[in-house]
Amino acid sequence: MLFVAHSYPFVNLGLLRIRIASIRVLVSLWCMRTLGEMGEHEVIRRLTAGLGTASNLVVGSGDDCAVVRLPGGRIDQVFTTDPVIEGVHFKQGENPLRVGNKAAGRVLSDIAAMGAVPRWLLVNVVAPANLEFSFLEKTYEGMSTLCRRFGTTIIGGDVAEGSGFELHVFGVGELPAGSALLRSDARIGDIIFVTGALGDSISGRHLDFVPRVEEGIFLRESGLVNSMMDISDGLATDLRHILKQSNVGAVLDEDDIPRNSTLEKALYDGEDFELLGSISPENIDPLQSCWEKRFDLKLSIIGTVASESGMLQLRSGKNIYTLKDKAFEHFST
Amino acid sequence: MLFVAHSYPFVNLGLLRIRIASIRVLVSLWCMRTLGEMGEHEVIRRLTAGLGTASNLVVGSGDDCAVVRLPGGRIDQVFTTDPVIEGVHFKQGENPLRVGNKAAGRVLSDIAAMGAVPRWLLVNVVAPANLEFSFLEKTYEGMSTLCRRFGTTIIGGDVAEGSGFELHVFGVGELPAGSALLRSDARIGDIIFVTGALGDSISGRHLDFVPRVEEGIFLRESGLVNSMMDISDGLATDLRHILKQSNVGAVLDEDDIPRNSTLEKALYDGEDFELLGSISPENIDPLQSCWEKRFDLKLSIIGTVASESGMLQLRSGKNIYTLKDKAFEHFST
Repeated sequence: MLFVAHSYPFVNLGLLRIRIASIRVLVSLWCMRTLGEMGEHEVIRRLTAGLGTASNLVVGSGDDCAVVRLPGGRIDQVFTTDPVIEGVHFKQGENPLRVGNKAAGRVLSDIAAMGAVPRWLLVNVVAPANLEFSFLEKTYEGMSTLCRRFGTTIIGGDVAEGSGFELHVFGVGELPAGSALLRSDARIGDIIFVTGALGDSISGRHLDFVPRVEEGIFLRESGLVNSMMDISDGLATDLRHILKQSNVGAVLDEDDIPRNSTLEKALYDGEDFELLGSISPENIDPLQSCWEKRFDLKLSIIGTVASESGMLQLRSGKNIYTLKDKAFEHFST
Repeated sequence: MLFVAHSYPFVNLGLLRIRIASIRVLVSLWCMRTLGEMGEHEVIRRLTAGLGTASNLVVGSGDDCAVVRLPGGRIDQVFTTDPVIEGVHFKQGENPLRVGNKAAGRVLSDIAAMGAVPRWLLVNVVAPANLEFSFLEKTYEGMSTLCRRFGTTIIGGDVAEGSGFELHVFGVGELPAGSALLRSDARIGDIIFVTGALGDSISGRHLDFVPRVEEGIFLRESGLVNSMMDISDGLATDLRHILKQSNVGAVLDEDDIPRNSTLEKALYDGEDFELLGSISPENIDPLQSCWEKRFDLKLSIIGTVASESGMLQLRSGKNIYTLKDKAFEHFST
């Protein structure tokens, strides 16, 4: 933003103030003309600001899934969509089974993040006419194999011609009314937990990961968890979504963050597809003891929810640092 | 297919027969290597053949929407997805309000074709970084304006970077259990009807059309209609889907087909987004009289369902012609 003055020389001249304010708006509009200049998050924020609402819409845009209440009031449905685009989410020449796994896995991970049971997927395919059918068929095999694991069925979609290969997957999940685990329910004093280990998914896990569907359902059914989401843009960026939406802050403990390689990668790499959540301190021991009986996967305690809204800090020995905001964003250079 | 022999010289030699059969499979695989060589319908047929099923899946791939039974058994949900891609579904430089109208309209038309009430849309956006935000914002305005008309709400989606502009819309509708109007329920002797007038949508209507949502709900609620779908690939092509799935034939009356320009365009142009259905002869008068009180739109009787499975004929004066199969297909040249 070019124009950041917060006061004007002629504060008593209302008309001039309006004019200067108008120029500010125009300049700011001019400054943020293209998607590249705005960045993914600002684009989404502005697009979704104008969307309508409905009486049976429980959660709209802004969480891992939208949540709607079904007629009868006993069951909620969750809906989500994710694209997988050649050159953006996978490299040309990639094994199509892995591409399919990632396409279905991203959506199943969003559904898992709400603690919901995934039921249905629909798939829009975009592909060039010279694509070999066997490639497309194998991406479906990759999607179907992952879906079968969770009792999820691919029930429709569409195929259209385009210049590059893309899969757009739409997912539907289900859970008892009011039980979805949201980003907005973290409380000051909560323990922050994460599943598995973070960072360096680019070395292969971003294509081969198994979404934490069973773990998400378990965490929701426990009734002990306050907030949850999946990590797709990196721990630091995604935890900030919880902080912002819950109006809280957080302090992470450097030594406790489970990592696949460096701390930097664990904090800022994207596409971990692990679950990140918060729980009241008195509930963490009961949860951990049930968890260990059920899963051969680490559930790590990595920090606590603090009162300073939006502030994300890292405790390193006796020092506390404020973490920088850095993550992959579509359209940002 | 290069290899079409139905008998072999050595029918008693089982092993040789297997070998020749294997060569046939290999040759046919080689003949159908790329999506362009196979065409959209064959691609979809082969992709969906291997998909699983589920106890509460009422209708899978192959109709305008998939249909699932909700827990409790009183309500069915319909799901559908459609893409709108720059250079395929609209030209570069098109008015974004119209692009948005088409993107939401295509999905709402599919939902209308089942007779369902559209509830929710989700939207995946693919766009280049240099796209002006105002263009994207206006496509959302186009979608939202159409949605508001039918009480439908956009509740989520995703935004990703790509080389061209695309909107992938996912729609959810609702109707009483077992009441969805399907392509597979036309009966021999049925009267074939169509809403509005057909052909020449390329002159503008393919972007500005209002999907027949209220009409679809009315037709379903009447309890009089046997089969229905929307016309997206042209009357001749889409009616063939009903014929194939209902295992029947049809004779159309040339003079009765409502057209915007020529008969050829009315039969073969795509993107009319009108409703096409069939109804028992004794029910057409009661339906027509209710229809006329409710809608200022023509409901035309255009032919009858016949017994010759899959055969589509046109009566012109005293002559009857078999109609050729010609329509736009993705990937076909």
